Amino acid sequence: MTEIHYVRPQILHVTTPLQLVSGAELPSYDLVYETYGELNVDGSNAVLICHALSGDHHVTGFHEGDNKPGWWHDYIGPGKPVDTNEFFVVCSNNLGSCRGSSGPATINPNTGKIYGPDFPIVTCRDWVNSQNSLRQHLGINQWAAVVGGSMGGMQVMQWAIDYPDKLRHALVIAAAPKLSAQNIAFNEVARRAIMTDPEFHGGRFIEAGTTPKGGLALARMLGHLTYLSDDMMGAKFGRELRSESLKYSFDVEFQVESYLRYQGEKFATKQNFDANTYLLMTKALDYFDPAAEFNNDLSAAFAQTQASFLVVSFTSDWRFSPARSREIVRALLDNDHSVSYAEIESEHGHDAFLLPNAHYEGIFRAYMNRIKQEWHA
Amino acid sequence: MTEIHYVRPQILHVTTPLQLVSGAELPSYDLVYETYGELNVDGSNAVLICHALSGDHHVTGFHEGDNKPGWWHDYIGPGKPVDTNEFFVVCSNNLGSCRGSSGPATINPNTGKIYGPDFPIVTCRDWVNSQNSLRQHLGINQWAAVVGGSMGGMQVMQWAIDYPDKLRHALVIAAAPKLSAQNIAFNEVARRAIMTDPEFHGGRFIEAGTTPKGGLALARMLGHLTYLSDDMMGAKFGRELRSESLKYSFDVEFQVESYLRYQGEKFATKQNFDANTYLLMTKALDYFDPAAEFNNDLSAAFAQTQASFLVVSFTSDWRFSPARSREIVRALLDNDHSVSYAEIESEHGHDAFLLPNAHYEGIFRAYMNRIKQEWHA
Repeated sequence: MTEIHYVRPQILHVTTPLQLVSGAELPSYDLVYETYGELNVDGSNAVLICHALSGDHHVTGFHEGDNKPGWWHDYIGPGKPVDTNEFFVVCSNNLGSCRGSSGPATINPNTGKIYGPDFPIVTCRDWVNSQNSLRQHLGINQWAAVVGGSMGGMQVMQWAIDYPDKLRHALVIAAAPKLSAQNIAFNEVARRAIMTDPEFHGGRFIEAGTTPKGGLALARMLGHLTYLSDDMMGAKFGRELRSESLKYSFDVEFQVESYLRYQGEKFATKQNFDANTYLLMTKALDYFDPAAEFNNDLSAAFAQTQASFLVVSFTSDWRFSPARSREIVRALLDNDHSVSYAEIESEHGHDAFLLPNAHYEGIFRAYMNRIKQEWHA
Repeated sequence: MTEIHYVRPQILHVTTPLQLVSGAELPSYDLVYETYGELNVDGSNAVLICHALSGDHHVTGFHEGDNKPGWWHDYIGPGKPVDTNEFFVVCSNNLGSCRGSSGPATINPNTGKIYGPDFPIVTCRDWVNSQNSLRQHLGINQWAAVVGGSMGGMQVMQWAIDYPDKLRHALVIAAAPKLSAQNIAFNEVARRAIMTDPEFHGGRFIEAGTTPKGGLALARMLGHLTYLSDDMMGAKFGRELRSESLKYSFDVEFQVESYLRYQGEKFATKQNFDANTYLLMTKALDYFDPAAEFNNDLSAAFAQTQASFLVVSFTSDWRFSPARSREIVRALLDNDHSVSYAEIESEHGHDAFLLPNAHYEGIFRAYMNRIKQEWHA
C-alpha cells in the first residue's frame, strides 16, 4: 500500500518593500509556495518552477481532501522527469494572482481594504525579484534549474537575464521572447470583456458583492481557444452536434460551443478566478520584452546569461509557435551559449506543455538527468 | 471631366412566402439590391455578387453624397476585373442583414412590430433561394457567374449545388466548404459577448431604446482579429506604443489595442451594425455544410453542379486557409468538373480578398475575360 504524503502550502511574509518595474512599490507581501523533495546538503538540487497565467504554486501531489493532483503532475513528482526523489522542487504563486500570494483579492496593508484595482501592475521581472526573496529565504545559493511553460517560460528567461549566477539551467517551454501584436490583441479583447462587464464595478466587484462572471467567462473561452489547435478541436469536436439534429436556434448547437461555455463558466464560478488577476496576468504577458532595454536586440539581452538552456516548442502551438522558440534559440546561439532545442510533434496546441507526450517526456527527463549527473560528478 | 453616375439601391418586395431551411416561413420580404452596367440583349452578361458577414448590396460606385465607394470597388466597376462596362452586375443585401433587406431591425408584417429576436434563423440556402427570386424578377435566365468572398463564397457554392443550370461560372474566393470547430468556437465567443451584454435585452434592444454596443464591439474586435494575419499585424503594429513610453496601466498601451478598440466601437456606433444581424450571420456561417446531406461527402455534394469554378485562396488567411480551398478543389476534381485554383501570396490574412493585389487581380480579370469570350464567341 502506497502511503500518500499530502503537500501543504507555506507562506513567506516579506517585509522588505518590493520596488516594481512600474515605479510603484509593494511595502510588504505574502508569497504562498510549496516544496517537494528534500534540499541536499550542498543545496545543489533545488529547482524552481514558474507557473503560467491561471496556474498556482500547487505543481504536483495532493492537498489533503483533494482528488486532483497539482497542475504539472505528469512531469514533476517521484519518478517523473523532474524527479522529486532527487530534486528539491519549489513553486510559488505569482504576485497579483488569486491563489494565496498578495494580489488584488487580498488586503492592502496600507488601507486595510481589499486591493482590487489598486493592486499595482506587476511584470515578469517583479515576479522574479519576489521569487529571489524566496530563494534567499530557503537558503538556496543557486537553482540547479528554473523551469516554466508559457508565461512560466518567460519568467525563466527573466531569471537567466537578471540573476545570471543564480541558476545553472533554464528550461523554457512553449514560450516566446515577447508577445506578437496578435497575442496582445487577444489579451486586449479578453480584458475588454472583463472591464466592460457591468459587474466589474471598476475592479471593486468584491466590495460590491459580485463578480464579473460573464466577462471573465468570455475571456477564458477566448484564452482557451488560443490554447487549442484547430486540428485538435477538429479531432475532438469536429462539427459534432449537441442534440440529435440541428435546432436552428441560438441555443448551443455544436459540441464545441458547449465545451467552451463550460470551460468559461467553470473558470468564473467553480474555480472562482479573480477578474483583476486575469487583467494583471495578461498585462504582464504584454509587457514581457527583455530585448526592449537592449535596443530590441534579443541576442544582447541574453549576452550576460550564464545558464545552459533547454528550449521546447510544440508543432501545433499557434499561440507561441515553434518559430517564436527558434528566436530564443538563435539569440542564445549568437552568444555561443549552451542551448538544446526540441520541437515536439503534438496536436494539442499550446496546452501540449501540460499533457502526456512520450517524446517531450523523454527529452525533459534526459535533460534533468544530465543536471543530476553534474552534481553527482 | 468625369461625370459621376451615382448608384441607387432598389427594392424588390417578394410576396411569395419563403420556406426556410429551419422549417420557419417568411410570409413576405424585401430585398434591397443594386445593379451596375446594362443587361445585354440575350441576358448572358449578368453576374451576381454575394456579400460577406458585414457586407451589403453596395458593391461599387458611389451613392449621392457618399465619399466612399462600395466595398468591392477594387475589383468591380468600369475597367475592373468584373468590368461593369461589359457585365451587368447585381448584388442584393442578405435576408437577416441590417442594410435594408428584411431583417431583425425591420417590421414583422405579422405583428407590426420590429422583428428583433423573432426574425428566423436564415442559412446560405435561404439566401440563395431569395436571390433566385431576384434573378427571376430581373429576367435573367442564367448568371454568367456568381461571385463571392468568404461567406459570399459559401453562397456561390450553394448556388452551384441548388441551381446547377442557373449559373455558368462559380467564383469562390477565400471560403471554406464548412466551418471548422475553431471557426465555430470563435463565432460562439462573439455571440456570447453580444448575448450576455445587459443592453441586449433578449434581442429586444431597439424597443428598449438601446443597443448592446459593448458586446457588439467585442464581437467585432474578435472577428477583426481573425481576419488579419499575425504577420500583417506584426508589420503594421508590432509592439509600437500609443504613447512615448510605457504607462503600466490598463489604459491602451500598444497601438494594436487602440486600433482594435476603434474598429469595435466604429462597428457598434458609427456603422450602427445590428447585434441580432451579427448573431444571424454567424449562425448561417456555422450551419453552412453542403456535404452534410450527402453523408459528409463533399464530392457527392458537388456531383450535380454544372458551373465551371475558379477557387482562390490567400496564403496568410488563417480563418479560411488555402487548405480549406483545396478541399473544395479536390471535391470538384473528383467529379471531373472544370476548376481553376489560385493560391495568392498575401500578408493580409482573410481581408486579402478585398484588398489590391496584382496577382489576384490578374487572375480574377483573366477569368472574367474568359467568360466574356464565351458570349462573344
